[in-house]
Amino acid sequence: MTRYGPMFGPDITFLGVPRCDLSSLADADVVILGAPFDGGTSHRPGTRFGPQAIRQACYLPHDGSRPSLALRVDALQDLRVLDAGDVEMFSGDAARSVAALEDAVHRVAAAGAIPIVLGGDHTIAWPDATGVARELGFGRVSMVHFDAHADTGDTEFGSLIGHGQPMRRLIESGAVRGDRFLQIGLRGYWPGPQTLSWMAEQRMRSYEMTEIVARGLDECLTEAFAIAVDECDGVFLSVDVDVVDPGMAPGTGTPEPGGLTSRQLLDAVRRCCYELPIVGVDVVEVSPPYDHAEITAYLANRVVLEALSALARRRRGDEWNPRQPLLDAR
Amino acid sequence: MTRYGPMFGPDITFLGVPRCDLSSLADADVVILGAPFDGGTSHRPGTRFGPQAIRQACYLPHDGSRPSLALRVDALQDLRVLDAGDVEMFSGDAARSVAALEDAVHRVAAAGAIPIVLGGDHTIAWPDATGVARELGFGRVSMVHFDAHADTGDTEFGSLIGHGQPMRRLIESGAVRGDRFLQIGLRGYWPGPQTLSWMAEQRMRSYEMTEIVARGLDECLTEAFAIAVDECDGVFLSVDVDVVDPGMAPGTGTPEPGGLTSRQLLDAVRRCCYELPIVGVDVVEVSPPYDHAEITAYLANRVVLEALSALARRRRGDEWNPRQPLLDAR
Amino acid sequence: MTRYGPMFGPDITFLGVPRCDLSSLADADVVILGAPFDGGTSHRPGTRFGPQAIRQACYLPHDGSRPSLALRVDALQDLRVLDAGDVEMFSGDAARSVAALEDAVHRVAAAGAIPIVLGGDHTIAWPDATGVARELGFGRVSMVHFDAHADTGDTEFGSLIGHGQPMRRLIESGAVRGDRFLQIGLRGYWPGPQTLSWMAEQRMRSYEMTEIVARGLDECLTEAFAIAVDECDGVFLSVDVDVVDPGMAPGTGTPEPGGLTSRQLLDAVRRCCYELPIVGVDVVEVSPPYDHAEITAYLANRVVLEALSALARRRRGDEWNPRQPLLDAR
Amino acid sequence: MTRYGPMFGPDITFLGVPRCDLSSLADADVVILGAPFDGGTSHRPGTRFGPQAIRQACYLPHDGSRPSLALRVDALQDLRVLDAGDVEMFSGDAARSVAALEDAVHRVAAAGAIPIVLGGDHTIAWPDATGVARELGFGRVSMVHFDAHADTGDTEFGSLIGHGQPMRRLIESGAVRGDRFLQIGLRGYWPGPQTLSWMAEQRMRSYEMTEIVARGLDECLTEAFAIAVDECDGVFLSVDVDVVDPGMAPGTGTPEPGGLTSRQLLDAVRRCCYELPIVGVDVVEVSPPYDHAEITAYLANRVVLEALSALARRRRGDEWNPRQPLLDAR
Amino acid sequence: MTRYGPMFGPDITFLGVPRCDLSSLADADVVILGAPFDGGTSHRPGTRFGPQAIRQACYLPHDGSRPSLALRVDALQDLRVLDAGDVEMFSGDAARSVAALEDAVHRVAAAGAIPIVLGGDHTIAWPDATGVARELGFGRVSMVHFDAHADTGDTEFGSLIGHGQPMRRLIESGAVRGDRFLQIGLRGYWPGPQTLSWMAEQRMRSYEMTEIVARGLDECLTEAFAIAVDECDGVFLSVDVDVVDPGMAPGTGTPEPGGLTSRQLLDAVRRCCYELPIVGVDVVEVSPPYDHAEITAYLANRVVLEALSALARRRRGDEWNPRQPLLDAR
Amino acid sequence: MTRYGPMFGPDITFLGVPRCDLSSLADADVVILGAPFDGGTSHRPGTRFGPQAIRQACYLPHDGSRPSLALRVDALQDLRVLDAGDVEMFSGDAARSVAALEDAVHRVAAAGAIPIVLGGDHTIAWPDATGVARELGFGRVSMVHFDAHADTGDTEFGSLIGHGQPMRRLIESGAVRGDRFLQIGLRGYWPGPQTLSWMAEQRMRSYEMTEIVARGLDECLTEAFAIAVDECDGVFLSVDVDVVDPGMAPGTGTPEPGGLTSRQLLDAVRRCCYELPIVGVDVVEVSPPYDHAEITAYLANRVVLEALSALARRRRGDEWNPRQPLLDAR
Repeated sequence: MTRYGPMFGPDITFLGVPRCDLSSLADADVVILGAPFDGGTSHRPGTRFGPQAIRQACYLPHDGSRPSLALRVDALQDLRVLDAGDVEMFSGDAARSVAALEDAVHRVAAAGAIPIVLGGDHTIAWPDATGVARELGFGRVSMVHFDAHADTGDTEFGSLIGHGQPMRRLIESGAVRGDRFLQIGLRGYWPGPQTLSWMAEQRMRSYEMTEIVARGLDECLTEAFAIAVDECDGVFLSVDVDVVDPGMAPGTGTPEPGGLTSRQLLDAVRRCCYELPIVGVDVVEVSPPYDHAEITAYLANRVVLEALSALARRRRGDEWNPRQPLLDAR
Repeated sequence: MTRYGPMFGPDITFLGVPRCDLSSLADADVVILGAPFDGGTSHRPGTRFGPQAIRQACYLPHDGSRPSLALRVDALQDLRVLDAGDVEMFSGDAARSVAALEDAVHRVAAAGAIPIVLGGDHTIAWPDATGVARELGFGRVSMVHFDAHADTGDTEFGSLIGHGQPMRRLIESGAVRGDRFLQIGLRGYWPGPQTLSWMAEQRMRSYEMTEIVARGLDECLTEAFAIAVDECDGVFLSVDVDVVDPGMAPGTGTPEPGGLTSRQLLDAVRRCCYELPIVGVDVVEVSPPYDHAEITAYLANRVVLEALSALARRRRGDEWNPRQPLLDAR
Repeated sequence: MTRYGPMFGPDITFLGVPRCDLSSLADADVVILGAPFDGGTSHRPGTRFGPQAIRQACYLPHDGSRPSLALRVDALQDLRVLDAGDVEMFSGDAARSVAALEDAVHRVAAAGAIPIVLGGDHTIAWPDATGVARELGFGRVSMVHFDAHADTGDTEFGSLIGHGQPMRRLIESGAVRGDRFLQIGLRGYWPGPQTLSWMAEQRMRSYEMTEIVARGLDECLTEAFAIAVDECDGVFLSVDVDVVDPGMAPGTGTPEPGGLTSRQLLDAVRRCCYELPIVGVDVVEVSPPYDHAEITAYLANRVVLEALSALARRRRGDEWNPRQPLLDAR
Repeated sequence: MTRYGPMFGPDITFLGVPRCDLSSLADADVVILGAPFDGGTSHRPGTRFGPQAIRQACYLPHDGSRPSLALRVDALQDLRVLDAGDVEMFSGDAARSVAALEDAVHRVAAAGAIPIVLGGDHTIAWPDATGVARELGFGRVSMVHFDAHADTGDTEFGSLIGHGQPMRRLIESGAVRGDRFLQIGLRGYWPGPQTLSWMAEQRMRSYEMTEIVARGLDECLTEAFAIAVDECDGVFLSVDVDVVDPGMAPGTGTPEPGGLTSRQLLDAVRRCCYELPIVGVDVVEVSPPYDHAEITAYLANRVVLEALSALARRRRGDEWNPRQPLLDAR
Repeated sequence: MTRYGPMFGPDITFLGVPRCDLSSLADADVVILGAPFDGGTSHRPGTRFGPQAIRQACYLPHDGSRPSLALRVDALQDLRVLDAGDVEMFSGDAARSVAALEDAVHRVAAAGAIPIVLGGDHTIAWPDATGVARELGFGRVSMVHFDAHADTGDTEFGSLIGHGQPMRRLIESGAVRGDRFLQIGLRGYWPGPQTLSWMAEQRMRSYEMTEIVARGLDECLTEAFAIAVDECDGVFLSVDVDVVDPGMAPGTGTPEPGGLTSRQLLDAVRRCCYELPIVGVDVVEVSPPYDHAEITAYLANRVVLEALSALARRRRGDEWNPRQPLLDAR
Repeated sequence: MTRYGPMFGPDITFLGVPRCDLSSLADADVVILGAPFDGGTSHRPGTRFGPQAIRQACYLPHDGSRPSLALRVDALQDLRVLDAGDVEMFSGDAARSVAALEDAVHRVAAAGAIPIVLGGDHTIAWPDATGVARELGFGRVSMVHFDAHADTGDTEFGSLIGHGQPMRRLIESGAVRGDRFLQIGLRGYWPGPQTLSWMAEQRMRSYEMTEIVARGLDECLTEAFAIAVDECDGVFLSVDVDVVDPGMAPGTGTPEPGGLTSRQLLDAVRRCCYELPIVGVDVVEVSPPYDHAEITAYLANRVVLEALSALARRRRGDEWNPRQPLLDAR
């Protein structure tokens, strides 16, 4: 199997990291996959251009190096991060697309690398986490899920596949245990009572924004992390950019006012990847046609870098102190 | 009298709630009125398209149902919410327009329903609160007013009517007592000392952002609520979307940096409608031509839904605990 | 069968014409169908919001009346024009979507009415023209096709269905004869020689912009019309808004510089519907996320009105003189 | 009377020409007036920012000099062009606003200068042409009117004043004779038969785009000019920027596809001001909130400069040959 | 020397304050200078239009008066604030441009006034602080620097001059002592370890966002202020608008997600100018082409006003209580 | 010398053609160079992102193949077209930048290939044409120059280098003879009489839009071509995208209304490269920050492709008939 090409536009890699081919991943730590798919979106499309936008939203040279001021690692250098290009995902055929993606993710996991999938709409969380679970074992991977929406719908537009349903599919298939499903940032007016009841039955743990405001995000995360690592071997991190307030991240398809700030999301992603045994990540729902001045693409790019930097710092193993002055740090 | 039609564009209702005619409101709990007027704006116009934008800014089906995750009510179902359409308000004739609106609001109040008026510029707060006070009694309605601006100017461009003057008109006429006027979120460089002196003489209570940051919004609201319900029979809630920082709500006419976050506004509106005896609401100053990706329209739509949901939860009567996990709630 | 609802946003009709249900079309002259589908797009999506945008892009009242200055008919009144709403077309399942649309179009044709389908990406031309041909007979309907692109590709992204392939499918199935296929406005760098050879073998007649500039659009149209009515019973008119120069119609997915002006397209559509026995129309590839100030949506709305007005004038039967002064006309 | 200040933003003049006061215009050739009014708009507002935008839309220094390549005059130097600032026009009070503008225009005309009024919506054509006619005599001024719309409505939103009615008011009052009213560029679906009948009764001459395309714009203009100077002492030129296709001039309130090109409008305005005895000009309906990259504001700025340059060339008196090479010209 | 003219567009002053000429500044308290330069930008340009945008981003009359609600001073009246216009800075010649600016700033400082320089890209901090230090003494001015970036690079694109290098130039020249350099808001992935080592060697004190979140902004500022006034005679305040989150301030060239809120920046600037002996200010990196609805320009305008108001309040000398209700204040 | 890298963003080539290094161009027919420079712009910057935007503005696969429908060649295959990347051009140092570019262009010309330079602002025409003339001989290369502006200014902002002055520099140095300088599309209000006199003295031939409209573009081109090939060995083609009307090409720095249509420009470029002995091309003044939906970038991309296709067709040598039907062609 040769390298995936770009589905749209020129063939670039995430900030200039080396290209790779899924057939030779022996020494990869992290493999980036593009999932240029918006066929599962229930409203505004455009996320097919998410991978392209996330890969290049940066004012710095695209040189495969990004030393983190906060964490004092250069994840793109300290880890072996490769970019396999875009899985071919025809938005008009969701079923074929998710199968192709699941297979690609599984190959990455099977090679012992962490897949980071750039969406695409949230439909892809189903093949993303399934692909990892096929390697680590169904029920052995917990999920930390940042989102304004629960994405636990049954069907939409008559389809089982779509960006409102991936979490249900994952639980139904057994890939992820319902009681190891942690949702952060929910709000708004969906889903309705019937679906909430189903979620409660699965013993999911969903932190709506009201609880987060009342208790503080950090306390909620600490609680969630304890559940996530209980009787699971790894954690999949799924970040829907709409967890951030639409005022700060307008380039998305189903904006729900009242979300986290960008700062909160970056800090939370850092904690996830520094404190938890992450085995896969996806960053989804960036829709460039609705973005302004690339601010949402930049945010998603930084979410990926924050995740990578925290993974690298975790591997380094020494203690990290957030209160330490920048120029005292090493 | 037949139903108001749409002033601009197709004839739609707020998220698909039933249409109504002001002559038959017998069993309505809430009546939505559009006030498509921007003739009173001192700077950027465009709020004439506010009602249209607020009614439809949602990615969910327009089916007259919106179950709130936070409050566990479906306000559009639990309350009888009707939409009467747009009052005809020719922006070139402010005097005639405010008279027509006042009459319409009064008819809603007289029918025992709560009017929710979708602006339009803030000029409309004068007829909105007057229309309610005509039913409940002049001086018997207090005002909770979220805004970057005091809106207590005397005249502008030689006119007594305009979006910088409604609050003065309300106090001068006696419709609302000056000492039951609570303003939240003021900031910036207007009005000047003379007007501030007039406001102090009326014994208004205005929370500038500096005080809100220093003391906390929740403490300020609690203090304000105590004043609002002292010797008044009801509270009118007037929400100018520019109380939120322009970075999060750019689609407005007179943006003043340094405002609340969207999250803060939603939580504050929820508290108002859950803790206070609300008798009328307006949501104003959404200017779609200056919006991006509808984010300001979405915010205003959610302000309306938050108000409705809290009204519904208040009517249900049981206690609400913001710290309760989503899936434990009922 | 009940009326189709809206797939996105509120339930509106084209400029306020009456709603209809496909099961009772007895006296309809024209039935408007929305095809909110962008799953077949090879590049920028967004046409799923085309039907919604085309229906409402007008500054005049949405009152079901549009008296044409040029043609002196009021097509929405002189003809019985109904709007059936949006066919459910899940963009993630192209196969199911085109089947549903073909069936809907066929029902309209079977009722003796002219379907006008609002796209949606150009994938829909396949079900649109097939639905008509099922009623009038395969090979009995010719095609006049305005487009920058030939849309005669074989497969794209591994799929036979997509917005680059509908014309091939129509010819392969026999629904439309290749030698009764008239294409106006082609240009650019697609398709390649192999596909062009296939097209030549089918005896298609394609007017590239070079020929149109050299000979004049009117001469080309006259020539094409003669072919279109030769041994055919009706003509399907398919208008891809990208036939117009992207400078004048930016809101589209695959913009190709060097196209017609808006004025040329409107005049050409008028000639088609006034001079030819039209049996179906579609207007496709309007992508609102890429539009500015609704100018592309307005253009598409006027293409529909121009088609309707010319149909109405043709039915009236009296001669029409384009040089007659406006105020002399009747 | 002191100079008008700016109604919005900083106090600037048209491309840096000198300021003036209406009480001392003795030697002015042309006086520019801003009419920052959008209270008469039936749809999108924003033209209140037209004067400000038109005055400054230029990449060249704002130095009161603009040598025309085409006409080889520097109108801002060869003529005495002054800018009186913005008449105060509160958009919420159309009646008071038009009275103030009429008075200002009359003062300019009474001083023997040509007023050039920067709109604002087209409501202002009523006070503009009336102000001139008060000086030259009712019925002694003909009108050449570029527009997509006839603007001859009777009432709108219950008002006699508005941007759809100014031409009717002018004819009804006798300020301009109906049979000396020349309209260029009409198209679309307004007004209806009743109003067209009224127009025909007034013996107006309206060139719809169909006639313009069929006969050629130059032939139509030549014919119109002959009518305009028959038994009239001067011509008022009213240019609605929406006569140009919305694809080339998107920043306007009621866009109607199928219009002139920018090039055609500039050439036509040049002919008007070079061939006709112009006594007043207005340029209206530029709405900056709907503009992109200032292109509509630039166009309006160039319409004003083209008018001024042709006025200057006409005064110079020597023959002008459009076929002469640029560098042969003097 | 005459007054600087505008480099682009019409000749306006900051909110209408009086113009001035650098040769006669005898009684000025503050002099505003425009630095319309973007030749030093490493990525998105556009800041050449910053001065123009910052001067006019306000919905209030441009009348040289801005009474602060928070601080109860009218800085534009209480201080003598003049605007000298734009220093000519050809973006294609950085060396000549910075020399011209340094000279202009020095003349202001020499006249005993505080220069407030409106950028322009951050290149200008080098001449800005140097111009002040030439008057007060090299090493006698400390720096408080709000920014997402350290701006301590050595060279970029082969040049010592640029917006990533000004702080290094200032320390290398001795104009500002490295150990009196306070940086607030740094984050992201630049500069790398080598530059950080150089910074540490200079004994700079840089507050990365992680430390700010962990300790609180107010605590960090208090600590920084103590350093700033230690053995220094004055403080230069340099505000890069990109210290604010791109979601709230998109109109900038090198956006880095995860920044301060607008509210935080305004409060911090207030503290700086109220608590510290400010001798110069610049506000940089506002890039209007990337802004939306002028929100970033508004923010920068308010940063300038906040600085001026706090300067005025500091001069008044009486105590200021942020918890005092607005209408109790004097 | 190694290959130039990208100055901004990822390292891509024009539509996927092979990369090259200036030191090994032996068999190249055409070499593409990026000139990411906007330091010479007198107004709006942004053209530094022109090369990046022009290279990728295409909805087709970036596969190094573009079969032209009009000309029936695949220039990217039929010619050996290589992309050398971006010359490093620091916008803050125009002098150094133009020297670097001139050297790069000269190396391409010296290798016998045709350089196609992607601007960048029009400053680059000076080094572009000089670089070619250094190889072919000063005075042996004529210039065909499409532009709204003559670009023959003497100095601007005190600099001899800038986008308003390149043509003067070329004539002064003798690189291009003044009487072999053909300008197409000039219009507007710059330059003034003094510069026009200088141009006349050089015996330049400039076609202002008035002459083009009066005589027809084709006649003007035929006349110009005859001059261009008189006593010259080659022709340099310089295309400023602002020759097209800003309505159709808004993404540029100094828009001048009243220009060519996109269609006219494409046809004219085709004629140039098919009929003339082209030795170099530049396409300049595309400013992505001011573009909408990439339409200006698409136009520039198509100008490059049109030039390449006509070059390829010219080399093929057989006759080309613009009236031939598409499917008859070979």
